[in-house]
Amino acid sequence: MSVTYAQGFEAAGVAAELKSTGAKDVALVVNTGPTKVGAGVFTTNRVFAAPIAWSREVIADGRVDAVILNSGGANAATGPEGFVDTHRTAEHTSEALQAAGRDVSATDVAVCSTGLIGVRLPMDKLLGGVDQSVAELSATGGDDAAHAIMTTDSVPKLATSDGDGWVVGGMAKGAGMLAPGMATMLCVVTTDAAIDSEVAQAALIRAVATTLNRVDSDGCMSTNDTVLLLASGASGVTPTPEEFQAALTDVCAQLSRGLVADAEGAKHDISVTVTNASSEDAAEQVARAITRSNLFKTAIFGNDPNWGRIISAAGTVPEDVAPFDATNLDVHVNGIHVCRASGVGDDRDLVDLTGREVFVVLDLHAGDAQATIWTNDLTHDYVHENSAYSS
Amino acid sequence: MSVTYAQGFEAAGVAAELKSTGAKDVALVVNTGPTKVGAGVFTTNRVFAAPIAWSREVIADGRVDAVILNSGGANAATGPEGFVDTHRTAEHTSEALQAAGRDVSATDVAVCSTGLIGVRLPMDKLLGGVDQSVAELSATGGDDAAHAIMTTDSVPKLATSDGDGWVVGGMAKGAGMLAPGMATMLCVVTTDAAIDSEVAQAALIRAVATTLNRVDSDGCMSTNDTVLLLASGASGVTPTPEEFQAALTDVCAQLSRGLVADAEGAKHDISVTVTNASSEDAAEQVARAITRSNLFKTAIFGNDPNWGRIISAAGTVPEDVAPFDATNLDVHVNGIHVCRASGVGDDRDLVDLTGREVFVVLDLHAGDAQATIWTNDLTHDYVHENSAYSS
Repeated sequence: MSVTYAQGFEAAGVAAELKSTGAKDVALVVNTGPTKVGAGVFTTNRVFAAPIAWSREVIADGRVDAVILNSGGANAATGPEGFVDTHRTAEHTSEALQAAGRDVSATDVAVCSTGLIGVRLPMDKLLGGVDQSVAELSATGGDDAAHAIMTTDSVPKLATSDGDGWVVGGMAKGAGMLAPGMATMLCVVTTDAAIDSEVAQAALIRAVATTLNRVDSDGCMSTNDTVLLLASGASGVTPTPEEFQAALTDVCAQLSRGLVADAEGAKHDISVTVTNASSEDAAEQVARAITRSNLFKTAIFGNDPNWGRIISAAGTVPEDVAPFDATNLDVHVNGIHVCRASGVGDDRDLVDLTGREVFVVLDLHAGDAQATIWTNDLTHDYVHENSAYSS
Repeated sequence: MSVTYAQGFEAAGVAAELKSTGAKDVALVVNTGPTKVGAGVFTTNRVFAAPIAWSREVIADGRVDAVILNSGGANAATGPEGFVDTHRTAEHTSEALQAAGRDVSATDVAVCSTGLIGVRLPMDKLLGGVDQSVAELSATGGDDAAHAIMTTDSVPKLATSDGDGWVVGGMAKGAGMLAPGMATMLCVVTTDAAIDSEVAQAALIRAVATTLNRVDSDGCMSTNDTVLLLASGASGVTPTPEEFQAALTDVCAQLSRGLVADAEGAKHDISVTVTNASSEDAAEQVARAITRSNLFKTAIFGNDPNWGRIISAAGTVPEDVAPFDATNLDVHVNGIHVCRASGVGDDRDLVDLTGREVFVVLDLHAGDAQATIWTNDLTHDYVHENSAYSS
């Protein structure tokens, strides 16, 4: 049900020939109110796409009426002309919605794009897709929209969570950042909870920090990453901030898991949990050092519980970032205590890595904080996907 | 000629059955003086091997009489027992040398190991190899020593540079850090220049900073990396610090190129030069962001001059680390100006990537500093080597 699971939203997904395959490639999500709250989190890459520049401005006032999304072209590294294209897309969306009797200003239309970098969008096709999307808007269009934003994804990512009289639903595209040949993770979450923009923005930042931002398949940050939250207030129910946070985080976590599970070329989904760190940030930094180690990721592909590569990666984190005694690290892989006090522990041959899920736990013995980062293994297929495909 | 190119050095390389293949696996380098100057640079990984802990102490007083090296076992993550093994190796080397009429104290014997992590060394075999090495010491033993430290290397890495009446020579092992399955880059450089330990240490730090430390094939820092410089003073000639620096840097640069060229599984040697940066550090950080991008490295494997992935990687460097205008970046790949002002430049199809050497130049337009990092592409063979081989 995705973005139309909550009341107060309509959506559509159409094929506008941006993709050579003829698959759906333009999606539209419209908030029908009564309120039009919007919040957003964007890539922190300094090289960002035109839609990022535009959408940041759109959400600045806490209001978003509609989101127009396209696959088949990232509109990144396209210069001032690319920004004009994005602006024109928002204007056209506004005009088409107004012609259909919906009062939406262009400055309340967020834009998201994903696909090749360094190529202008075919605007005629895209604007035709906008018109078609407006014509096909419906309260059951969420699944079509989720399909239209797919690139190398093998399945659409959908998630829902139910509150007491209100709900949250969302869609995402991306293959675990393992195939950001297509350059982007896009995510749109909607809710019919009656919340204001401050609550929405704060909750989104917190939810993303511990879910989508902890998916780190290859350490490569795209130029187009966008997470948007739209709230219609259509349920008439105002949850407590804690209740809303829990449901929103749940949806973002589901979508994150979907991204990892769909990572192209991956043979294992890996969760790296660093425990007993001096702070959550320290735990996160150590976990990221491990999930970004090509040696660790290739070892897991080879079904090798290579704890030496795990503690060696941890050792690259500076002491001021994560204080710990490097001679007193413990590692568990899928429940087997393979490294004890930074030395040989239980027999590594006891570790079963034949399944898809891999759980690594590194105990720093330096405090009581912890963090988990999700990643994938580094496989022949990853190399193939990303060498054969230009982005 | 390697470590015996300079006067005042003897070396040996023998097979002690640490390697199952029967290849040479123990090397010894002895400084016969008249002076016994030693300097060293070691891994900054907080998880470091026992020989690192020992050798750091040995060079603390600026004197090194001998270096005993082994392949076939890294003696890393081996706990206090591993340190005892390293200590015993140095003691035994000292005793064997004294029995041969050479007055060498154990505290002047540096130790280097490379091979599997988390496994104790077979000390009986290793100490037998030490005895054999002492017996075979000769002023022409440099090549044997260079062979004995090889692990996944396909060729030994040797380098020399001639001063005016003095010379520098060196050996290294490592496959461009692309196969640190074997966990280590080891490098020993010798000179017959008459220099003191302050000059030696300062020159080594500077030489390594712009050569061996700028080889960054997969961003993985080993537990055993060691670079040692030994000076015998046997030429009786004292070069100026600048002359010595130039020759030492030349040898380290040659060895660095050898490491990259021998990177297992690599199909391309890539140099990434960042120009017109605000500082050399800024240039280096941006270049490293690019050379660590798996997306960039797989693109080069696919013969794809993917400038979008280059500027996207640059964009992940924080502004306080490297100030630049992200909308005004220029990229040349093998001489073709593929990205102009962060947008499309000359036709990327003009770029010829069929050769092994790839030159990437990123112009930040933010100052006049520059830096180069050398790396390799990310290939199927890299994944194979590092998933099939346990370290």
